[in-house]
Amino acid sequence: MNSSKNKKAYIKTPVKGMADCLPSDVRIREKVLNIIKENYKKYGFTQIETPCMEHIENLTTNEGGENEKLIFKVLKRGADLQREIEAGTTDFADNALRYDLTVPLSRFYANNIQNLPSPFKALQIGNVWRADNPQKGRFRQFVQCDIDILDDKSSLAEIELITATSKSLCEILKPAKISGLTILINDRRILIACAKQAGFKDDEILSVLISLDKLDKIGLNGVREELLKNGFKEEVVTNYLKFFEDIEGKTCSEFCKNINEGYLGKEVAENLQNIISCVEPLFENGIKIKYEPKLVRGMGYYTGPIFEVILDDYNFAIAAGGRYDNMVGKFCQKEVPAVGFSIGFERIITILKDKSNFDEKIEGESIAILIDENLSNEEKLEIFKEAKKLREEGKIVLIEHMRKNLKKQIGDLENEGYKEFKKVFSK
Amino acid sequence: MNSSKNKKAYIKTPVKGMADCLPSDVRIREKVLNIIKENYKKYGFTQIETPCMEHIENLTTNEGGENEKLIFKVLKRGADLQREIEAGTTDFADNALRYDLTVPLSRFYANNIQNLPSPFKALQIGNVWRADNPQKGRFRQFVQCDIDILDDKSSLAEIELITATSKSLCEILKPAKISGLTILINDRRILIACAKQAGFKDDEILSVLISLDKLDKIGLNGVREELLKNGFKEEVVTNYLKFFEDIEGKTCSEFCKNINEGYLGKEVAENLQNIISCVEPLFENGIKIKYEPKLVRGMGYYTGPIFEVILDDYNFAIAAGGRYDNMVGKFCQKEVPAVGFSIGFERIITILKDKSNFDEKIEGESIAILIDENLSNEEKLEIFKEAKKLREEGKIVLIEHMRKNLKKQIGDLENEGYKEFKKVFSK
Repeated sequence: MNSSKNKKAYIKTPVKGMADCLPSDVRIREKVLNIIKENYKKYGFTQIETPCMEHIENLTTNEGGENEKLIFKVLKRGADLQREIEAGTTDFADNALRYDLTVPLSRFYANNIQNLPSPFKALQIGNVWRADNPQKGRFRQFVQCDIDILDDKSSLAEIELITATSKSLCEILKPAKISGLTILINDRRILIACAKQAGFKDDEILSVLISLDKLDKIGLNGVREELLKNGFKEEVVTNYLKFFEDIEGKTCSEFCKNINEGYLGKEVAENLQNIISCVEPLFENGIKIKYEPKLVRGMGYYTGPIFEVILDDYNFAIAAGGRYDNMVGKFCQKEVPAVGFSIGFERIITILKDKSNFDEKIEGESIAILIDENLSNEEKLEIFKEAKKLREEGKIVLIEHMRKNLKKQIGDLENEGYKEFKKVFSK
Repeated sequence: MNSSKNKKAYIKTPVKGMADCLPSDVRIREKVLNIIKENYKKYGFTQIETPCMEHIENLTTNEGGENEKLIFKVLKRGADLQREIEAGTTDFADNALRYDLTVPLSRFYANNIQNLPSPFKALQIGNVWRADNPQKGRFRQFVQCDIDILDDKSSLAEIELITATSKSLCEILKPAKISGLTILINDRRILIACAKQAGFKDDEILSVLISLDKLDKIGLNGVREELLKNGFKEEVVTNYLKFFEDIEGKTCSEFCKNINEGYLGKEVAENLQNIISCVEPLFENGIKIKYEPKLVRGMGYYTGPIFEVILDDYNFAIAAGGRYDNMVGKFCQKEVPAVGFSIGFERIITILKDKSNFDEKIEGESIAILIDENLSNEEKLEIFKEAKKLREEGKIVLIEHMRKNLKKQIGDLENEGYKEFKKVFSK
């Protein structure tokens, strides 16, 4: 065992759950990222970057829910690590890789508040890491694209986020001829009001919502059984689930009619209705927005409207977000309302790659110059000068030595996307 | 102590040595990255991506020299970690963050060889991490931009790398009115031949080169003292340092005249001379290439030509690279010649930011629409429809609520780069 540890072992596969991206993959990814950047820019979002690593304290606050169990921790170094080992403690990590972009954004805002406009419209694109079980389209390192509006408590923020995100998604999916998006919207305050009126205590609500989140999968009876199993009173559970009977097609005000005003101010439903009526007329063909009273969203930090974008033909979420008015304040001792919308980049890439009609070849005018290995220096220089000129004109110029199997070489280059070829032999 | 550990602490500064990038920072970074991508694309390089995390085995092979001491290790998780703790071992990490892009590229090539062209011209842009002491322009997370040509043993690879990289650097520095680049070039085989002929043994050479690398700083006498201090024989050291007396202005063939053919084949100097004579006539004004017999470069893996780009006015390297013909083969049991050139992205960004003539404001046609908070839903909708139209025409449209201090609000937006303003009051 020890000797094998000392041997230099080289492993050619990537780390579990993380993927190598081939040139054709990167072409799709870059194309989609450019669409996203270009579109969000038009809405006044400006891009920021935060480090991939965060203080472990910021990532283990319970606000991140289940994601916190999945963080990759970074080992302390040098004397700091030695101290832990000698003390026999297991406090080995000082930093960790971020599991989302919302915590880093909140820290960023608090740290740079004096240099940022108010409201601040941020675009953040970056890798995040979760030690989840890898599946198709689910990786342990993946890109998220988030827009957030900070320091705007009005529904203008939600309206702009929803309009901008649905436009981004349209632009991305159009070339692959995918249309049909539904934006589901709800408000955490309505969910909480229902639970309170039914008789649940404040500290029980998060657990209740986790059960409610399974409604689509296990039905009302399944949720009832789970709540009873979790030790809640039958009467309270019955009261609660009554809210969720016959909800299909109900508007927000219709749903909220059953909630007493002591639990929910009228302004919540009005606000949601206002958002819906402002964004709906702006949508392109194939996009809908729908009040969804059973929409929960996992994160603990949401405080108001929450939303999710479903791709109709696939029936899964490709973007999601919501209002989190209490998080930024924890970093800067000042209340900063905030709302964000995150695009599930890897899921979209997986969908686009499944559709074979996405062109993955090199783009633009291109020429491959295939040269004889025995060209003199003078002859070579002529080629380089010619290539320089063509490149200055914007052309892609590949210079390669001619191979014995020239036909195969040209065929391979055609597959990559080269259209023009020039062969240069020694004089 | 224990109670403070249980308290939720939020830290608003980034992790040590890692930086938040404000919108104006990201604008410069994105502009530079786009120049790099556009330029390298014209030379036939195609972009790939590798995960930020690598198997720890791949990063601790001694090939990375000093950088291996600086790696950030990632803690094992769950049962794997528990097992180490219970066994009392200190083998806590299974992965680590990459410290460069060359090791991941080599692994990538071995893993995907059947899907890649030959030769393969790769562009890789990504974060790397080193737990170095932070300084101005030196961070613990930083971006590298690498181009590499794999499976081409001819000098065509070096010529294309040098031409493409110097063009990228020109394009980046031009808007900041910085010119004057010198490309230093040498060959590891010449350095090794000098050391062998002087009498050093094979396994002493890396240590000798580390001392030689300090020649600029400590002079010939300083290098002599260090070599003697390291226990090398005076005669050998004297023989060795004779090679490096009066080297200023010498061509490669002049320098190599003193090396016996048994230690160095004629083709090495010819090859270097050939590279120089092919790239020199292609350079734009202000770029030079110079044979530098004392250029060493730190990495253990270089096997042939090595190069470095010096910014004349600053006297430090902004790009560097070389040939590493033995590394890829360790991942795939097949010899794969390789050569790469890496741009020191953060150093360049630091230089550009120091020059205040770099425009960091938002670009493109833009309008800020400042609306009365009390607009009716119908009035708001009109604004959103107008904004939609303007955005479709390519304009940046920011919609904000009017603030009490409207003058300050408009001033702030002008500072961000907004040029046109529209105020909308409720009717």
